[in-house]
Amino acid sequence: MIRLDFSNVLSDEIGHNGLSLDDIQSHALRAVSIFSRKPYKEFDFVDLHNQNLDELKEIGKKVREKDYFIILGIGGSALGPKVILEALSPLHNLKEKPRVFIYDNVDPVTLRNIIEVINLKKTVINVISKSGATSETLASFLIFWRMIKDRKLNVREHFVFTTDPDRGNLRTIAQEYGIPALTIPKNIVGRYSVLTPVGLFLSEVVGVKAEELLRGAKEISKMAFNENINENPVATLSSVLYLMDTMKKRKIVVFLPYSDRLKTLSEWFSQLWAESLGKDGRGTTPYPSLGTTDQHSQLQIWMEGPEDKVILFLSIERHEYQEEIPEEFHDIEGLRFLGGHTLEELLNTEQLATEMALTTNRKPNLKIIIPKIDAYNLGQLFQFLQITTCMTGLLYGINPFNQPGVELGKRLTYGAMGKRGFESEGQEVKNYLKKQRFMV
Amino acid sequence: MIRLDFSNVLSDEIGHNGLSLDDIQSHALRAVSIFSRKPYKEFDFVDLHNQNLDELKEIGKKVREKDYFIILGIGGSALGPKVILEALSPLHNLKEKPRVFIYDNVDPVTLRNIIEVINLKKTVINVISKSGATSETLASFLIFWRMIKDRKLNVREHFVFTTDPDRGNLRTIAQEYGIPALTIPKNIVGRYSVLTPVGLFLSEVVGVKAEELLRGAKEISKMAFNENINENPVATLSSVLYLMDTMKKRKIVVFLPYSDRLKTLSEWFSQLWAESLGKDGRGTTPYPSLGTTDQHSQLQIWMEGPEDKVILFLSIERHEYQEEIPEEFHDIEGLRFLGGHTLEELLNTEQLATEMALTTNRKPNLKIIIPKIDAYNLGQLFQFLQITTCMTGLLYGINPFNQPGVELGKRLTYGAMGKRGFESEGQEVKNYLKKQRFMV
Repeated sequence: MIRLDFSNVLSDEIGHNGLSLDDIQSHALRAVSIFSRKPYKEFDFVDLHNQNLDELKEIGKKVREKDYFIILGIGGSALGPKVILEALSPLHNLKEKPRVFIYDNVDPVTLRNIIEVINLKKTVINVISKSGATSETLASFLIFWRMIKDRKLNVREHFVFTTDPDRGNLRTIAQEYGIPALTIPKNIVGRYSVLTPVGLFLSEVVGVKAEELLRGAKEISKMAFNENINENPVATLSSVLYLMDTMKKRKIVVFLPYSDRLKTLSEWFSQLWAESLGKDGRGTTPYPSLGTTDQHSQLQIWMEGPEDKVILFLSIERHEYQEEIPEEFHDIEGLRFLGGHTLEELLNTEQLATEMALTTNRKPNLKIIIPKIDAYNLGQLFQFLQITTCMTGLLYGINPFNQPGVELGKRLTYGAMGKRGFESEGQEVKNYLKKQRFMV
Repeated sequence: MIRLDFSNVLSDEIGHNGLSLDDIQSHALRAVSIFSRKPYKEFDFVDLHNQNLDELKEIGKKVREKDYFIILGIGGSALGPKVILEALSPLHNLKEKPRVFIYDNVDPVTLRNIIEVINLKKTVINVISKSGATSETLASFLIFWRMIKDRKLNVREHFVFTTDPDRGNLRTIAQEYGIPALTIPKNIVGRYSVLTPVGLFLSEVVGVKAEELLRGAKEISKMAFNENINENPVATLSSVLYLMDTMKKRKIVVFLPYSDRLKTLSEWFSQLWAESLGKDGRGTTPYPSLGTTDQHSQLQIWMEGPEDKVILFLSIERHEYQEEIPEEFHDIEGLRFLGGHTLEELLNTEQLATEMALTTNRKPNLKIIIPKIDAYNLGQLFQFLQITTCMTGLLYGINPFNQPGVELGKRLTYGAMGKRGFESEGQEVKNYLKKQRFMV
């Protein structure tokens, strides 16, 4: 089970940069109390473990026999699948089939490179968009659609959609052409969708049992309602991160897992946190990081830069391999001392040393601890971070499920690209381009 | 040539969040003036175009015939090579040989996976460490060293070192065993080393001419000394980023290139900026981002979150491919409007729309513009960002070349791992582990 060590945010440990245990516990209790009322319909994400997996398992089984699997999606429709792939099947494309490509941009060079590598006949393309209206995803979908048709291949065999149960362009096309279409439940928004077919279908395709992810998530969903705060790490973490902002003006949360396999989890968490909480001039900025690598990149600024960060470690007790470091060069001290240890030891020691160094400099830091990386624990982590984000939003009094700030950019894009109904935005873009620029 | 559009940081455009042209220009001039004095010996990075490439080209040519090439390095010894690989040879490992692995952590699972994929007989391992004392790099070096010996292979044919000209463990071992060793010049520190053999050797290995990178860098080095500020984008950018912190309390610089190939450049820049400027409680936090992808992840918080960011776009005028979006589904407006455009158009339009949306909300943003991604332009970018970082440090009165804040963590790691001379740090770790923890 996930545990949280929050010793190093207490004022006993880090002085005036720290919080009191009382404040943490009272706000944690308040978080649980608001959470238990489930004030938004989007709270359905807490019950995703009650999901029927038959359809996605059946389709997943067929896709597993193919050579290539492409996901077209962006934001919440790509980051969750990316985490599952990299955490549960590391270096996948050099070792396993089907090769998986997650195309989450409109970069023409990436797309061309993917097209050059695949064999279209042996490829299934999973188009993921809740609304069915995501320009980036639809643009690449159109390119593959035309390719499949040009080669006289059957669209029913090469596409799987993952979308809204009954609305949007993808649902319409699925019905018209008989394309298999998995469902993202009505009340689940993109960044809380990894435990729907958005992530679970890929999971089955790469041979990871979806029910294991859900089993982990269920444990956390249950635990999050616990009013005994001493047994509720989700509420405790939410409270600490909320107070570190509102009482201590720490506006950046560095998310720092110590495993290459969880590098993308940092990016997934950053989307979740930023879109959920960054509104009304409030929220804190999540910073995607990776240990030990970023000790050689960011540690300097954490230690001696502005006093605006909280470091959230994610430590993995046991790695799948340990890898012993051999004893060589006995006469060179810089090499000798490493021999006989394992890489796992070095990795976990560096995490500990970094935590100690930060604490010595009175920089607030906490640590999530998981026993190992597998589907069950990853399911826990997903739900742990989703509920933490949601609870923190409730403490702020923010709706953690909308993202009103992205609409203007979308409308301007529609206008510039000539979508009907966005003529005035099109005109705005034209005017902007005529303005004099300050250039060097 | 690189250009900079700074219209959207001016108060004429974004009101009280903006700066005056006068302030920008006077601080830019001050930046050039301090820079021209070259106050630190580490300024040698400005002259790296005067480099003899014969040795690295000769060794590179041999390695090009191998099947696998592994870099062991971390921080500045890994991020630069990563950028060169991903920018100039995208999807490299699915298309080209030698397959390249850049192992920049001590994660045992990643290492095991690499070992499973390679054929050691056909592998060259490039160990990169300026000091020759980087624990992470040496640990994996020891593992490969033992493997090469166990297989009775010749270490001279399987290792290339990149290190200090005459000091450190790697130089000692190179001399003793006759291992080819490339030189990182004396006065060049890790995060300013991409244009030394650290990055240039990989460049040659993947078939990109190192002199093209240097040719680009030279242009910028020349331009940076120009006291005519209207022709000096480096000084202008340094001035803006400095003033946005000191006058407007904007403590986060979001680096946002619009190309998948430059995703790692965001990470490289983040190391450069954070380690160079994050000291004495000062500096700003660099945030690695990617367009269009992160519009679906971070844009919400840029638009409506705390007023603490400057967005630095990097726009690429022309991509290697354009990829036309076909006209299909004429009756569905959400798809119809995309047909006939190219992905390149959509990508650049989204960049523009995001810039307009931010400006409408009075969020400061600037744009670096490059004509295309190739070795010459990447060389420009590297030097442009290196000099910008350095100049900004000089404006702060900070030494942009040291990183005193990482020492404590290193010493504690040495202590915990039993390195001679670090017994008291070892004891500190033991005491820390005995302390009572607050856990949930």
